[in-house]
Amino acid sequence: MPKPVPTEQLIDYLLRGDRLALARAISRVEDDAGAAARIVKAVFAHTGQAHLIGITGAPGTGKSTLVSALVESYRANGDTVGVLAVDPTSPFSGGALLGDRVRMTSHSGDAGVFIRSMATRWGTGGLAKASADALLLLDAAGFDRVLVETVGAGQAEIEIARIADSVVVVEAPGLGDEVQAIKAGLLEIADIFAVNKADRRGAARTVAALEMMLETGGAAAQTVIHHGQRMETGAAESDTEAEDGWSIPVLKTIAVSGGGVAQLRDALDRHREWLGESGARATRERMRLDHMLQTLVQAEMLARMERTLSPGLRSDLVDLMQRRKTDPYSAAADVIKKLSG
Amino acid sequence: MPKPVPTEQLIDYLLRGDRLALARAISRVEDDAGAAARIVKAVFAHTGQAHLIGITGAPGTGKSTLVSALVESYRANGDTVGVLAVDPTSPFSGGALLGDRVRMTSHSGDAGVFIRSMATRWGTGGLAKASADALLLLDAAGFDRVLVETVGAGQAEIEIARIADSVVVVEAPGLGDEVQAIKAGLLEIADIFAVNKADRRGAARTVAALEMMLETGGAAAQTVIHHGQRMETGAAESDTEAEDGWSIPVLKTIAVSGGGVAQLRDALDRHREWLGESGARATRERMRLDHMLQTLVQAEMLARMERTLSPGLRSDLVDLMQRRKTDPYSAAADVIKKLSG
Repeated sequence: MPKPVPTEQLIDYLLRGDRLALARAISRVEDDAGAAARIVKAVFAHTGQAHLIGITGAPGTGKSTLVSALVESYRANGDTVGVLAVDPTSPFSGGALLGDRVRMTSHSGDAGVFIRSMATRWGTGGLAKASADALLLLDAAGFDRVLVETVGAGQAEIEIARIADSVVVVEAPGLGDEVQAIKAGLLEIADIFAVNKADRRGAARTVAALEMMLETGGAAAQTVIHHGQRMETGAAESDTEAEDGWSIPVLKTIAVSGGGVAQLRDALDRHREWLGESGARATRERMRLDHMLQTLVQAEMLARMERTLSPGLRSDLVDLMQRRKTDPYSAAADVIKKLSG
Repeated sequence: MPKPVPTEQLIDYLLRGDRLALARAISRVEDDAGAAARIVKAVFAHTGQAHLIGITGAPGTGKSTLVSALVESYRANGDTVGVLAVDPTSPFSGGALLGDRVRMTSHSGDAGVFIRSMATRWGTGGLAKASADALLLLDAAGFDRVLVETVGAGQAEIEIARIADSVVVVEAPGLGDEVQAIKAGLLEIADIFAVNKADRRGAARTVAALEMMLETGGAAAQTVIHHGQRMETGAAESDTEAEDGWSIPVLKTIAVSGGGVAQLRDALDRHREWLGESGARATRERMRLDHMLQTLVQAEMLARMERTLSPGLRSDLVDLMQRRKTDPYSAAADVIKKLSG
């Protein structure tokens, strides 16, 4: 077996855009918290250049095909593209990931494209931290556009909104009532809507429904979000105003044939331009960095808890709880006392 | 405005099964961390009796209708039922929740049924903590069955597997390829599969596909999960063996007409019986309590971080990161030094 490349050398090659070094660095960041800290520290000064684009939506909308079509469109335009496909639905299985890989083989000979899949580790917050790290690496490696794709529905949307400069929410006609309800959550994070499979029956109705939701519910929801974010970060007094200049477009796409994809790319360019002019880009970056800070502190606290608490003590506390001799809150207070003492 | 009821009195009434007190206690637990600790401490000794049933599945499977039909079936059998509908998809909007409420009005005059919806708060881990607390309250209030329904896909499944004694994963025919891929994740948490909308075309194929997945992939996946859980909790050496006695059934249901719902109820009874006989119930409770302990410690650590770090310092660190004068890992190390110092 070849000797593992030293981390410093990996960083060097990564910053020069070497794809293999990038792939290995991402693996190292996933596997080893110490290496993650060293690598991110070393590359961080080289980040902040890429256009970070989040793409999300419910299962069945053809999101992955759209990502692939968008990659092709960017490549035709001369832009380099990094893709991170995040799958929070399965801690072990490679189903969806394998699917992505198969779909992405059309780009496999192209040095201007880098694709990486990430699945959930069985553990708290592991995926969020690993994907934030990986995005920084893709950014530092010099890609013009970095796409993050998540399997939709759930906490993943909120995370993607925190990670990206521009968020595309993918919809499709005829996914049923429950999916309609989910839209309420997606509405609040979308910068652009793409109604994919637009050649199917019901596409016009889906577009109309989204536009109506944007008219009636959009303004109120946006205000609440920005209020929440402002409170959370303590940053940027003017972000509500900054958002005022962007009106969320609802586009039709047919990813399998490439229909509407150029328009989606144009809308993303317009959004990026708006981000820069309005100051929203800096605001979003602040929120992203603040969130990353919080995530890292939390991860370190948890690691400390794992180190401080012997398995025996932890198991004893669980015993006491199970016999109803103590309760979860009292047990937690005990742990915290030990951690601080 | 009437004076708020004192928490001690609320607890008293809740333990006697008073529905209004239960509703108010859940609200208080959601809103106020101090009250949550006091209430859970007081009721915890009265928990551990209810059969905790998790019901999950992708959007569009008719999961909520199935929950409603199952409630009806339990009621016809004389069991009391508490339902917690958890919606991790939207921090603000009431779309899905409203839908649940409308569907559930058929039970509204029945004192043996209690239904509560919970949506995500904009914050880390808030929903997981609030729903774990609420489940303890439902359990302490004396319901025979407590159903937890989550909107499918994503981290929510992993959480529900941690929370429940028995997990029902709802599928439906013809939801498309991407949903098939998601099944890989669901396979690992299901104790029972319900193929709902079984009168639709493709139902037999969906059943066959699930059965094949169970035959080929099930055993390996189960081993990995239990390995992971064992490592995490340090508990129960014999859990892999314990699971050996349960073979996951794949049932057909037609929730709208009640078809197959009695069979689902029977399967849940068999699973509960098996849980008790095999010792798996105690193992799952241990994992649940261990996870709750971890969640509470983590929440307290975060709260401490919020209290310790002045908004000014936090904002300064974000400034330095944005100007690439420091990086997220070094900033986090600074924060941790302050927290420990």
